Amino acid sequence: MSNDTATLNAEVDRLRLELQTLQAKAGVKSITVGGYLLTRLEQLGVKSMFGLPGDFNLGFLDLVEDHPDIDWVGNCNELNAGYAADGYARLKEGSLGVITTTFGVGELSAMNGIAGAFSEMVPVLHIVGVPSTVQQKTKPLLHHTLGDGRFDAYRQASTQFTIFDAALMSKTDAGQLIDQAITQCIQKARPVYLMLPTDMVLQEISSERLQIPLSNAPPPNAPAKEEFVIETIHERVKEADGDVVVLVDACVIRHGVRKEVKEFLKETGFPVYATPMGKTAVDENYNRYGGIYVGSLTHPTIKEKVENANLIISIGSLGTDFNTGNFSYNIPTRRHIELHSNYTQVQYARFDDIGMKQLLPKLTERLQSFHSVASKIEVPPFIKQLPKEESTVISHLWFWPRLGYFFKQRDVIVTETGTANFGILDVPLPADSILVSQVLWGSIGWSVGSCLGAALAAREKQLGRVILFVGDGSLQLTVQEIAVMIRKGLKPIIFVLNNKGYTIEKMIHGKYRKYNNISDWKWSALLDTLNDGGKFDTASYTVTTKRELSDLLDDSSFASADKIQLVEVLMEALDAPQALVRQAELTGKGNKY
Amino acid sequence: MSNDTATLNAEVDRLRLELQTLQAKAGVKSITVGGYLLTRLEQLGVKSMFGLPGDFNLGFLDLVEDHPDIDWVGNCNELNAGYAADGYARLKEGSLGVITTTFGVGELSAMNGIAGAFSEMVPVLHIVGVPSTVQQKTKPLLHHTLGDGRFDAYRQASTQFTIFDAALMSKTDAGQLIDQAITQCIQKARPVYLMLPTDMVLQEISSERLQIPLSNAPPPNAPAKEEFVIETIHERVKEADGDVVVLVDACVIRHGVRKEVKEFLKETGFPVYATPMGKTAVDENYNRYGGIYVGSLTHPTIKEKVENANLIISIGSLGTDFNTGNFSYNIPTRRHIELHSNYTQVQYARFDDIGMKQLLPKLTERLQSFHSVASKIEVPPFIKQLPKEESTVISHLWFWPRLGYFFKQRDVIVTETGTANFGILDVPLPADSILVSQVLWGSIGWSVGSCLGAALAAREKQLGRVILFVGDGSLQLTVQEIAVMIRKGLKPIIFVLNNKGYTIEKMIHGKYRKYNNISDWKWSALLDTLNDGGKFDTASYTVTTKRELSDLLDDSSFASADKIQLVEVLMEALDAPQALVRQAELTGKGNKY
Repeated sequence: MSNDTATLNAEVDRLRLELQTLQAKAGVKSITVGGYLLTRLEQLGVKSMFGLPGDFNLGFLDLVEDHPDIDWVGNCNELNAGYAADGYARLKEGSLGVITTTFGVGELSAMNGIAGAFSEMVPVLHIVGVPSTVQQKTKPLLHHTLGDGRFDAYRQASTQFTIFDAALMSKTDAGQLIDQAITQCIQKARPVYLMLPTDMVLQEISSERLQIPLSNAPPPNAPAKEEFVIETIHERVKEADGDVVVLVDACVIRHGVRKEVKEFLKETGFPVYATPMGKTAVDENYNRYGGIYVGSLTHPTIKEKVENANLIISIGSLGTDFNTGNFSYNIPTRRHIELHSNYTQVQYARFDDIGMKQLLPKLTERLQSFHSVASKIEVPPFIKQLPKEESTVISHLWFWPRLGYFFKQRDVIVTETGTANFGILDVPLPADSILVSQVLWGSIGWSVGSCLGAALAAREKQLGRVILFVGDGSLQLTVQEIAVMIRKGLKPIIFVLNNKGYTIEKMIHGKYRKYNNISDWKWSALLDTLNDGGKFDTASYTVTTKRELSDLLDDSSFASADKIQLVEVLMEALDAPQALVRQAELTGKGNKY
Repeated sequence: MSNDTATLNAEVDRLRLELQTLQAKAGVKSITVGGYLLTRLEQLGVKSMFGLPGDFNLGFLDLVEDHPDIDWVGNCNELNAGYAADGYARLKEGSLGVITTTFGVGELSAMNGIAGAFSEMVPVLHIVGVPSTVQQKTKPLLHHTLGDGRFDAYRQASTQFTIFDAALMSKTDAGQLIDQAITQCIQKARPVYLMLPTDMVLQEISSERLQIPLSNAPPPNAPAKEEFVIETIHERVKEADGDVVVLVDACVIRHGVRKEVKEFLKETGFPVYATPMGKTAVDENYNRYGGIYVGSLTHPTIKEKVENANLIISIGSLGTDFNTGNFSYNIPTRRHIELHSNYTQVQYARFDDIGMKQLLPKLTERLQSFHSVASKIEVPPFIKQLPKEESTVISHLWFWPRLGYFFKQRDVIVTETGTANFGILDVPLPADSILVSQVLWGSIGWSVGSCLGAALAAREKQLGRVILFVGDGSLQLTVQEIAVMIRKGLKPIIFVLNNKGYTIEKMIHGKYRKYNNISDWKWSALLDTLNDGGKFDTASYTVTTKRELSDLLDDSSFASADKIQLVEVLMEALDAPQALVRQAELTGKGNKY
């Protein structure tokens, strides 16, 4: 089934749904509002839901707990739950992450997590249990309110970070609003917000709409305009004599076009590079893949290959500071084509509503004639040698390539903002491995909650190991979520890079400042302290030398252990990956005091 | 100096300040914007500032770290920092709590803490380090942004939870905006929000304004109107034959009128009772104090005394659900007078802009003639006998009165939302002790951050011990902040009420539901795990029987230990203070599913 047919089918389904809703006056089956919502989520493959109980969502949680196919993941706090829903959604392509909180105190704690999902384009549904529809109108001075009757203040605040919000205040439109919210969420890959009053949870509504599944297919491209764009791009490639380089970025992952891109690359033979946020959008062992392009911070060989191509086709690009070497792309507009989720840019011309999902297969067909020319363009091999270093100290320069030998196919690798996000860039990752990171939003502590969500999704999808890299500073923000990993029987390998502080901040400003230091926890005791009454098997290690770490990585009982493991890696406070050092210098200049 | 004079003096100061600013054209001394802000805070007695470093606030943190009288308390995360600033402000009357975060990722994590301070009327200043004034205008796609150029989205969201917000974008008004923000904060006891762009921190401005200190004195009452109100109240008291009961509430504490109330009670001899949020507004060993009034949940003897008085004068009341036994006051408006921070209500008549701070001393003078009559009204003694229970299990019914014998004068007692907030109500607390709790906002986990802030303030003010009561469920939300207590050399006694879950939620709904359970941590290992490289002396205990707890409390080396201590108290999952059981029933009815 081609993408065109899929889109048209989705449109037909939508129309049929509206018709049926109007027609079904008699003999309509009923379902509770809460049940309707859960059925929609189940249809989309949601098997884990995140959040905390609070007195305005308990009735809804009854339904979640009783649902045969959805598991309630009780988190330790709401921020972590938001991060977990984000991590979960990143791995469940075509589905979404769901967090349920309570009015005011719960939902506001999750706000940074929701804003991060907005920024990074991750589909997260935020369900908030709120006071009854009666109380929403009479506005009594309830606990969890601001004391001044503004029952809509939290929703107002959240509109800054969602693309759609609704309050389910009546039976008549509850089903339609739920459908609208979820469709917006999965189509646009952004958070949405749903207020669920206590007295609405068990209200009965028609289940008729549920027969038509919701779809994340984007609206179809207008045929004539699309054909014009394809023709234009074909012309540019011809003018470029097929000397084209493809640059894949974040939105290839976020808008689910990995498959289309893979096919495009295979059929055209164009060389491909990735940005930091596009890493693993294309398998890094693909023989036409050349590594990471990040503007002026790029390795000279790669930089030359990318910037000297006659034509650069960016797919799903996201031009943020950390993703572009502080806006230092050296790619003139005249030689640049950009494919986005909802528009296409050819040199200076912008074509609105021409989205890449449907465009790519047609472009593949039109451009495959260039294969013989394009496949002759040389691509430098993307390999990382282990550097020889005299010192026994574990340096970033040595650590990341060394880990490169440890990774396996289908591993899920989660990296924290800070040294890890930069260190991982130069390491080629195995085929079908997935890198999960938050380069644009960059909220420290995110990786821990995200790792929980990713690990649950990985288990559901039967992926490989889940490996987290987090600094000691970042881990202190969200540490309690490791307890949830343990209780849920998850078995990630957690590398704690102990460098005694916020190294990324030290690189930017205040290298020797106390405010960038933190207290020194006994990391090796952490799993034991957070273990659920000692029910689970855990293992902790501390490594201080290259040899100790190497031995551990080579130990198969570690590499394939059937338990959660934490490895404290002692590193020097002021050591950092080169990419971070250079980025930090540029950021520091922008923040001049 | 009377309150009147203080207010007039403040007004004179303000006028003088405006004059001097205009006059001082030549010979003006200069100071950096960051330095100006810190000087204002120092003048108001701020000695500790909370928050985390982030790349947009590092330059400002240089100034904080170098300030001789202000200590930077690096928190583990921003929510905890917000809670800590709140707890600090509650103890530092006339001053404020300050939290500094970074653009987006930092500030949004603190939002629940800020909203709580708004709801509970606590003066917290939120300083947010943001991108430079240039970047605010050019709006590059920086990390920590939403990716769509909306640099004002976070500020927009925060306006829901602050009474004033400003961006320091220019030298010309930076000083004036800082003064306005801080004055609003301390006068109205609500959070304010200040954006500090990186390039503004070291800009030089005139230091002229700093010569006039800022004042938290409220605006003066209009004399004729005030006299009319006093006359009216006097009439009502006369009609009531002096049979008056005073009910003190939250705003006595929040708006700093403890002293005025004490004088009023002493001179008039009226009996006094407190609401849950007003507990310790009046010393609980005061011989005319009768205990806690909470509507229909009140002890019958107290209920009868309060509700049968001819006239009830409420001071600083806050009629929230948990503070009023779910709105079950049985006090007819005809027999009710309410004194508030900015208005006075006499029966059905409302008198705007007649604030209690200045009214109280005059009212004291006018009503002291009733002393001989009023002092004959019987007040039931507020004592709590230790109940005889056969079982060795530590029940709430026994636990709280037992702790009553442990408390000392000048103790600072912090209680968490949940069983602790309700259990503490019936226990008479010693003179000059302070109870810190969050009954209206009720965000679980708040007490841990708040305890950190309260402990720092207590040390600055040389108060007594700091004692925290927190459930295991709540503690898991914010546990990392204990590490900051340790690192700062604070020595609270932390009672962890281990009842294996969210007992308050179980009382409301879902008694046997899994979603109200949590994992079982090794609490006795916690201090050791979070200790800063084992630098500090700590002690942990687990008690499972009444005898074990009693022995511990009676042990003077425990009661006056010079180290941080954690006591895990094992309790039954479904045991709760009676006041909570009854409140939860009422709340459950409002949330009917």
